[in-house]
Amino acid sequence: MDIVVGIDIGGTNSPFGIVTKEGEILSSGLLSTQDYNSPEDFCSEISQKISEELSKLESEYNLIGIGIGAPNGNYKNGTIEFAPNLPWKGVINLIKLFEAKFNTQIYVTNDANAAAIGEYCFGKAKGMSDFIVVTLGTGVGSGFVTNGQLIYGNDSFAGELGHTIIVDEGRECSCGRKGCLETYTSVTAIVRTANILLAESSKTSLLRDVPSDALTGKIITDAAKSGDTLSLDIFDYTAKKLAFSLANTVAITSPEAIFLFGGLANAGDLLLNPTKKYFEEYLLNLYKGKVTLEISSLTEKNAAVLGASSLVWNEIEKKQNEKVYIS
Amino acid sequence: MDIVVGIDIGGTNSPFGIVTKEGEILSSGLLSTQDYNSPEDFCSEISQKISEELSKLESEYNLIGIGIGAPNGNYKNGTIEFAPNLPWKGVINLIKLFEAKFNTQIYVTNDANAAAIGEYCFGKAKGMSDFIVVTLGTGVGSGFVTNGQLIYGNDSFAGELGHTIIVDEGRECSCGRKGCLETYTSVTAIVRTANILLAESSKTSLLRDVPSDALTGKIITDAAKSGDTLSLDIFDYTAKKLAFSLANTVAITSPEAIFLFGGLANAGDLLLNPTKKYFEEYLLNLYKGKVTLEISSLTEKNAAVLGASSLVWNEIEKKQNEKVYIS
Repeated sequence: MDIVVGIDIGGTNSPFGIVTKEGEILSSGLLSTQDYNSPEDFCSEISQKISEELSKLESEYNLIGIGIGAPNGNYKNGTIEFAPNLPWKGVINLIKLFEAKFNTQIYVTNDANAAAIGEYCFGKAKGMSDFIVVTLGTGVGSGFVTNGQLIYGNDSFAGELGHTIIVDEGRECSCGRKGCLETYTSVTAIVRTANILLAESSKTSLLRDVPSDALTGKIITDAAKSGDTLSLDIFDYTAKKLAFSLANTVAITSPEAIFLFGGLANAGDLLLNPTKKYFEEYLLNLYKGKVTLEISSLTEKNAAVLGASSLVWNEIEKKQNEKVYIS
Repeated sequence: MDIVVGIDIGGTNSPFGIVTKEGEILSSGLLSTQDYNSPEDFCSEISQKISEELSKLESEYNLIGIGIGAPNGNYKNGTIEFAPNLPWKGVINLIKLFEAKFNTQIYVTNDANAAAIGEYCFGKAKGMSDFIVVTLGTGVGSGFVTNGQLIYGNDSFAGELGHTIIVDEGRECSCGRKGCLETYTSVTAIVRTANILLAESSKTSLLRDVPSDALTGKIITDAAKSGDTLSLDIFDYTAKKLAFSLANTVAITSPEAIFLFGGLANAGDLLLNPTKKYFEEYLLNLYKGKVTLEISSLTEKNAAVLGASSLVWNEIEKKQNEKVYIS
């Protein structure tokens, strides 16, 4: 049986899984990223855990490769480059580290690109050659596929939709600029929106019972689900900003579909319905009614590991069939 | 000798040329587009003229194909679809029309995509796999190349950068929406900017001697070149809007270079220098200093025909070498 290992290196946790070609996770594990002072320590520990899981497999297996999704992961160089949320600074050569542990192919990309390839291999984007995955988590990321290929760009850092400016002189962003999409549509951003609307509005709201520094995306989502109108306003505001950005993006790559993924996308229709409405309003006539907007079909729990593993399956497919692939 | 024919169908004129693989135009001609009530009449007349020019060629030739650039040209269907500036309405099947006249391959794309392929075959983008060409004419168009391929998108209408909204509730656009890039950075747009700044400012200016409905891009450019400060302000304003849009676009496709082309780009450094300054200011740190911003090396006179012809040369190259091509 051919299998691959998918690793998702995150700021808090780094889950891994042993994945079949059909996307079944045979076995999995988890490391707390912050426990490791150096990438070498991290690699040693996770490699040992992976080997243990592999040795437990009941049937014979053939390890095809290891796919790694990581913040600021660089596909072309096989590195993590200056990731602000990881305990390890500078440029980390993941290929070199993991090749010393496993005699197999190692592939690296960033988490949003991994999500896009995962959607292509195991989700709703199967067979699509032009689509976008937008991840709405602590930050906002994106993976663009056109002509059946992932856009890496000249430096492998394409797809930073979260850092397109959508409001001139808007909210301060961690990138040092102002008005980035990320400051309006990430999980942290809707807490900012909540605090602003709570201050500006005089509506009663369930959120007024929560100390402002204790507000979370989940609390706002739950309040909106129970019909709290101010919380619904927060989603409406967020949806409008997201729709504005997505409609502009359609005019560049003209995708068949856009998939929303990650923390905020878990709100489902609460986010999707107003976003769809504003999206159609903002779209150029040429594109109206042509672009599907959906929540990703991958569950957050599995998506990162599946996405990372699909990087390997996709490379295999690419080699087998030079015409239909995402690279 | 292998040759191709390039045709640029425009709202006013439709030039054509017989082009060698090296980009030499051996012979050329021109039709006034508005003289023809039907695409059939137009096709008959231009086909006859092309045949005459071909018969005059001194050396023996081999007609490889015909490339046609046209507004709303659809590469996948080989059609012009609902082009507002042409005398012919609806969907026009150019491949069918021209195949009835010539026993050769016919390729169609829109004018901005033709400019991008032209830049790749005969201009500064030679050998680049990630770049953008932005055309600043009566409207604003764009051709995006990533992974060495032109982005056509799901419906072949990708690359409408001119219709990304850069100012919420901004200037009215011919597309029926507000704030599109085209309303700030086309040749017609800088006349709008001139009239607004003339009204808002109390500066003396050469432009005040010109009746407002007689203002043109050329008059503003000439005034700016002679040091007229209000005219320089107009270019500064235009450059800032363009730079904002280009910096956002870099965050999506991460190109190696962006080339400006068309009417407004003819202003050269007058537009380029302030655009470069604002562009670097707006860019996300990750991209600063990495993306070249230049004026296209193709002259407007030849570019359209070269661009259209390069569509054919590019298809040939694509077939010969599946790895390095723009499709």
